[in-house]
Amino acid sequence: MKYILIFLFSSIISSAQVSKEQLNMMPWPQNIVLSEGAFVVTKNFKVNITGAPNSRIFVGATNFLRRLDGRTGMFFNQGFITGLNEVPDAQLQINCVRNAKIELYEDESYLLDVTPNKITLNATTDVGALHGLETLLQLLQNNSNSFYFPVSKISDFPRFTWRGLMIDGARHFMPVDVIKRNLDGMAAVKMNVFHWHLVDDQGWRIEMKKHPKLIEMASDGNYYTQEEIKNVIKYAADRGIQVVPEIDVPGHASAILTAYPEIGSKVVNLNVGSGEKGQQFKQVQTYGIERNAGVFSPTLDPSNPKTYELLSSIFDEVCPLFPGKFFHIGGDENEGKDWDSNPKIQEFKKKHNLANNHELQTYFTMQLVPMLKKHNKVLMGWEEIMTKNMSKDAIIHSWKGANEGVPAGKSLVDAVKGGYKTVLSNGFYIDLMYGVENHYAVDPMPKNAVLTDEEKARILGGEATMWSELASPATIDSRIWPRAAAIAERFWSNENVTDINSLRKRLKTVSFRLEELGLTHLKSKEGLLRNVSNNQKSDALLDLSNVCEPLKGYTRNKGGTEYQMYSPLTLFADICTPDAFDSLEFNQAVTDFLNNKSIENQTRVENYLNKWIKMDSDLIALSKNAPLVQPLLPLSKSLNDISQQLLLKISKKENVDTTTLNNLLEKCNSKEHADVELTVYNSLKKLVQA
Amino acid sequence: MKYILIFLFSSIISSAQVSKEQLNMMPWPQNIVLSEGAFVVTKNFKVNITGAPNSRIFVGATNFLRRLDGRTGMFFNQGFITGLNEVPDAQLQINCVRNAKIELYEDESYLLDVTPNKITLNATTDVGALHGLETLLQLLQNNSNSFYFPVSKISDFPRFTWRGLMIDGARHFMPVDVIKRNLDGMAAVKMNVFHWHLVDDQGWRIEMKKHPKLIEMASDGNYYTQEEIKNVIKYAADRGIQVVPEIDVPGHASAILTAYPEIGSKVVNLNVGSGEKGQQFKQVQTYGIERNAGVFSPTLDPSNPKTYELLSSIFDEVCPLFPGKFFHIGGDENEGKDWDSNPKIQEFKKKHNLANNHELQTYFTMQLVPMLKKHNKVLMGWEEIMTKNMSKDAIIHSWKGANEGVPAGKSLVDAVKGGYKTVLSNGFYIDLMYGVENHYAVDPMPKNAVLTDEEKARILGGEATMWSELASPATIDSRIWPRAAAIAERFWSNENVTDINSLRKRLKTVSFRLEELGLTHLKSKEGLLRNVSNNQKSDALLDLSNVCEPLKGYTRNKGGTEYQMYSPLTLFADICTPDAFDSLEFNQAVTDFLNNKSIENQTRVENYLNKWIKMDSDLIALSKNAPLVQPLLPLSKSLNDISQQLLLKISKKENVDTTTLNNLLEKCNSKEHADVELTVYNSLKKLVQA
Repeated sequence: MKYILIFLFSSIISSAQVSKEQLNMMPWPQNIVLSEGAFVVTKNFKVNITGAPNSRIFVGATNFLRRLDGRTGMFFNQGFITGLNEVPDAQLQINCVRNAKIELYEDESYLLDVTPNKITLNATTDVGALHGLETLLQLLQNNSNSFYFPVSKISDFPRFTWRGLMIDGARHFMPVDVIKRNLDGMAAVKMNVFHWHLVDDQGWRIEMKKHPKLIEMASDGNYYTQEEIKNVIKYAADRGIQVVPEIDVPGHASAILTAYPEIGSKVVNLNVGSGEKGQQFKQVQTYGIERNAGVFSPTLDPSNPKTYELLSSIFDEVCPLFPGKFFHIGGDENEGKDWDSNPKIQEFKKKHNLANNHELQTYFTMQLVPMLKKHNKVLMGWEEIMTKNMSKDAIIHSWKGANEGVPAGKSLVDAVKGGYKTVLSNGFYIDLMYGVENHYAVDPMPKNAVLTDEEKARILGGEATMWSELASPATIDSRIWPRAAAIAERFWSNENVTDINSLRKRLKTVSFRLEELGLTHLKSKEGLLRNVSNNQKSDALLDLSNVCEPLKGYTRNKGGTEYQMYSPLTLFADICTPDAFDSLEFNQAVTDFLNNKSIENQTRVENYLNKWIKMDSDLIALSKNAPLVQPLLPLSKSLNDISQQLLLKISKKENVDTTTLNNLLEKCNSKEHADVELTVYNSLKKLVQA
Repeated sequence: MKYILIFLFSSIISSAQVSKEQLNMMPWPQNIVLSEGAFVVTKNFKVNITGAPNSRIFVGATNFLRRLDGRTGMFFNQGFITGLNEVPDAQLQINCVRNAKIELYEDESYLLDVTPNKITLNATTDVGALHGLETLLQLLQNNSNSFYFPVSKISDFPRFTWRGLMIDGARHFMPVDVIKRNLDGMAAVKMNVFHWHLVDDQGWRIEMKKHPKLIEMASDGNYYTQEEIKNVIKYAADRGIQVVPEIDVPGHASAILTAYPEIGSKVVNLNVGSGEKGQQFKQVQTYGIERNAGVFSPTLDPSNPKTYELLSSIFDEVCPLFPGKFFHIGGDENEGKDWDSNPKIQEFKKKHNLANNHELQTYFTMQLVPMLKKHNKVLMGWEEIMTKNMSKDAIIHSWKGANEGVPAGKSLVDAVKGGYKTVLSNGFYIDLMYGVENHYAVDPMPKNAVLTDEEKARILGGEATMWSELASPATIDSRIWPRAAAIAERFWSNENVTDINSLRKRLKTVSFRLEELGLTHLKSKEGLLRNVSNNQKSDALLDLSNVCEPLKGYTRNKGGTEYQMYSPLTLFADICTPDAFDSLEFNQAVTDFLNNKSIENQTRVENYLNKWIKMDSDLIALSKNAPLVQPLLPLSKSLNDISQQLLLKISKKENVDTTTLNNLLEKCNSKEHADVELTVYNSLKKLVQA
C-alpha cells in the first residue's frame, strides 16, 4: 500500500489541456504541438527498447526510470533495462536506429509522441533518444493526485553542433564527483562538449606515469588519475558528451616549469660556474606553483628543442587517454615578457624571420600540430593562436570582447572569414558573475556581420566557461547553474527563442530539477549560511543574500592577489549568486508601482522595505555571536537607512530631503563591503527619483 | 582589507574564562583543564611540524588550516605545509615522535597545550597528532569579533582500540565520494576502523580482473574499481583509519551464485541429459541478483571442492588490495535450507562427522582460515562463526540481541570467555532508526558480566553498522550522522561520560561542523523537501518532518519486499530522521509545563499546538499541487485534531471528553501512513492524562 495513488481524477486529466506556457522545458524544443489529454504515470509504467543501439541507452533509460520514480514516488515494477525488446507491450517504446558516435555533426534529433496510452520515442541515434528522455522528464506535469505527461508531439534537433561547458580544474582542483554531477547537468540541458581545463599556472592535474615530476612537484597532490580520466570520459560518453582536454601552453606555464624549469624562457643573470674538469654548469631559473590569479610571465622557451621533446612526449601519454578528436592547447595570454628579455630567443626569432612574438608563438604552435596529428587530434586554441601562418585545420576559440578592448566576438568573424572553424565563448564567461540575461542575449551567430553560408557553417557553436579562481568544489555548482541551462538553450533552440521572462520562469523549475542529479547549486547555500551565521538560525542572512551579488568581472579579487588559491571561499560572497532573487522581484514591484500606484502595488514595495529594516536589526543581533556577519553590517545599514526614508516618502507621503535621500542611496552603491554589491540599487534609485 | 578583523577586544578575550559546559567537543577528551585567557586566531597563524613523521601529518595539518580558515574567514598567509620545521616560530607547534602504523593497539594519544601566544601539540604518533588537531578545531570559540582557543591543557587517549563504522555498499551502491566524506566524518570524531561491506545478495561490488563475471553479471554495473579501492584505503590511512573489507559467505550469496551457479547448494530436479558420446550433462541451478531485503536461501556448497578453489582464487585477488590485518568473511544468517534439502551435502556432513549445519559451517569457515593466512590476514566474522571447533584466532563480531531472541551482547561475553577477541555491534545498528539515547547507553564493556582482566582485554571495542537496504547516496549521511558521533564518544571517552543532556547539546554543534567535511546529513534535507513539496516553498512540510521519524526496526520495509533495491528513496520518510527535533523540544516543554504550570511554560506548549494546527491547513493547501504530500495528510490531521482539543483543555480550561481525547490521541500512534510515526505521541499522552 505504498504511495499507491488512486486515479479518481484520471478522466479529468485526460480532458485537460496543458498550455505551452505551463511547460518548463529547457532548451525549448524546435517543434512542439500539445493536444488534449494526458498519459498518466502509474506503477505499471515500463520501458521497451528496439532498434540497434548498444548498452548506452539501456543505462540511460534505467536512469530515466530512477529519476521518474524519485519524483513521482512510484514503485515501478521495472528495475533495470538490460536488453532489446524485453517488454514488447511497455507503455514507453524507444527505438534507435543505431549508436551515435561521440563526435560533432552527429544526428542528435528525436521525435517524441505522447498519446493517452502510449509514448513513442524515435531517434536515429541513441544519443538522440537520450535527449528525448530528458525532454520527457521535463514534460512531466501533475495535479493534486497524480503525475502525467500531456498528449503532445515533439520533433527536436540542435541548432549548433558544439554546445560546450568548460570547467577549470586547475585553479581550484575539482574532484571527479564535481565533474560527474556537472556532466549530468549538461546532459539534462542537452550540452554535448565538456572542455576540461587541466593545466594552468596554479597546477598540473593529469597523472603522468612517464613524467611523474609534473604531479610530484606541480599539483599539490591534487590531480586526476588516468583511471579517473578514463572513467570521466566513459561517464560523459554515456550521456552523449565529448571531452576536450586542455593543456595550456606556451603561457600559463608556471606549473609545467615548476617541474621542468629548464624549458622556461626566463634569463638568469647568475655566474655560471665551471667544474673541476672544466665542464660548464648552467644555472637554471626556478619556478613555483602560482598561488595568485592573473596573467603571469612564466612561458615555455620556443627556441629550445627540449621544449618540443617534452611536449611531444607529454602528448604521447595524454592523447591516448582522450578518444575525442579535439585537443585544446590554450595559447592565450602570452605577453611575451620573458621572450623579449631573453637574447637567445630574440636571436632565434631573427634567424627564423619571425617578425614579432605573435609569429614566434605561431611557430611554436605549428610544432604542436604534427604532435597531435600523430594521435589523430585536431588542434584547438584560444583566439591568440590565429595568426597569418596558422594551420587552417585549427579550431579558433573566440573569447575576447569589450573587457579585452576588442569588439565582442570579433575573432569569431575573423576566424570564419579566414577559413577557420570556431567556437564562441565571449559572452559566456559565467565565472564573471553577470546575470543570466547578459548571457542569454548573446548568440554564437553574429547578427551584425554579413557571412556566407559556408562561413556560417564554420561557426560550430558556443561554450560557457567556468574559470575557478574563486570557486571551490562546494561553490562551483552555484556559479555554473542554473545560468548554464539558459546558455544551453541558446545553443540548442531556435534563434527566435529569446523571451527573457519566459526564460526566468522556466529556469526556476529547471534549476530545482537539476538538483535531482546531485548538483548542489541550491542546497550548498544552506551550509554556507550556517558557516557565516555561526550556526545561528536566521532568515536575515538569507534575506540579505537575496539582494546581494558577488562583485562582477574580476573585481572581487583585486589585482588577482587578494585571494590566494588557498584562501577561504566560505564567505558571504560565496553564498551570493548572480540573479539575486529578491532584487528581481523587487524591481518588478517597483516598476509596477511606478506604473500604477495602487494600494496593492504600494504594499508590495513597502513589504520589501519593511523586511530590510527588520533584517538589519536581526543581523545586528546575529552578529553578536558571528564574526563573519560583522563585515555585512554596513551594507545592511545602508539598505535599512534608505528603506526607512523611502517608507516615509511612500507610505507617509512625507517630503524627504532629496540630498539626504541621494546620499543614502549612493551608500547602497558601495562595492567596499564583503565582496558583494547590493543589487537593489537601481530599483531604489527609481523610487528615489520618482 | 579582506575580513581583517580588528581585535579591539583581544584584551577582553584574554581575561575571559570559558567553562567546560560551553565546549562542544565530541568525543569528550579524557582530561581537560581550562584556564583563564585565550589564544586569538589571526591571519598570521602558522603551523610548524617537528619530530620524525612522514607526509601524512603535513596533509592533515594543511587540511586543518583550510578548515580553520573556512570557519574564521581568515586569509592565512600559510598555504601548504610540505616539510619539517618550515616555520620554526609558528604559533602552532606540532611534534610527533614517529609515524603511526595503521593497526590496532597503536598509540593514538596526544597532549594539547594552549597558551595565549602559543599552542603545542605533542604526540607519539602522527595519528595522535591528527586526533589533537580535530580536538583543537572543536575547541574553537568566538565572541562578536574574533575567534579564539581558550587557554587549556588536554591529555587524551582512546578507551577502546576498535572504534568502527560499517557501511554497506552492497544493497545500495555507495560511490567513492560517499565513502570518502564519511571517512572524513569518522576522522573528525576519532573513529579508526572502516568496515566496508562489499558483497551481499544484492550485488558484488569489487572489480575483479581474474573473475570478471562477478562484476559483469552480479553488480548492475555498480562496483568499486581496484584503483578506487586503493584510493579509499590511502584516504582512510591518511586519516588514521584502517579498512576491513567484507565478503559475506557462505550465505548472502545470491550475487556470487548469479555469476557462479555451479557452486550453489540448491538441488535441481531436472532431467539430466547425456550427450552423443555418452557424456553426462549436469543441469545447474540458476540464481539472480536479489532485489528485495531479508535473509535468502542461496548459499555456497561447502561440499564442493570448486567452492574453495574459487574462494581461494578470489582471496588471492582481493587480499592484496587491502593492507590491513583483518578480513571479514560475514558468515551470518545462513539458515541452511538449501543444505538440508541437498542429499549430496547431507552425505558430506555424515562423512565428515558434522553433527549439524553449524558444524558444517565451521568446517566451511575453517577452510578459509589458511586462504587468508596466506595473505597475513586474520579472519573475522559475525557471531555465527563462533562454534566449538572454530579457530581461536578469529575475531567474533557480536551483533545479535533482543530482536534476534537472545540477550543483548551475549555472544560478546561468550566470545571473550571462549578465548576470542571480539567487537560489539549489537546496540549500534544505526540503520534501525532509533534515537541517539539508545545507542549512547550501550557500552562495549558489559556491565552485568564478571570478566577477568584478560577477558576484558579481548573486547577490542565497537562498531556502528549502517546497512543500506533503505539508504541511498543522497540519504545515507542522515542515517549515519550525527548519531555515529555519539557512538564514537562511547568508544573513545571515559566510561563515565554518559550525560545524555550534555550529549544532545554538544551534538547539535558537532553535527553542523561535520558538514564542513562535505557530509550532507543536514543539507540533503532541503532537496528532498523540495521533491516532496513539488518545489513549493513551505515551512509546513519541514515542521511535520520535525515531529516524524521513519518507522523503526525493519518495519518500514515489511517482509523486505515492499521496497526493491530500485524503489524510490525520495519520500517523506527519507526526509525524516531519528531524534526529530521538535519532538524532543516539545517533550521538554510538556515536562516543564506539567511540573510548573506557569504562563511561560503553558505558552511554550500552546505554541507547538498552534503551530501544528496551522501546519495542517498549510499542508492541505500544499497538497493541491503535490501528490507526494497526500499520504501525509492523515498524520497531519491527527496532530491537528488532538492539538485543537488540547488547546481547549489547556488554554480555555474546558472539560474535554476523555474518550474523544483518547481516540484522537491513539490516531497519533498510527504507523500506517507514509512509513513514518509521529514522535510526539508520548508527550501528547502526558498532556491528555494530566
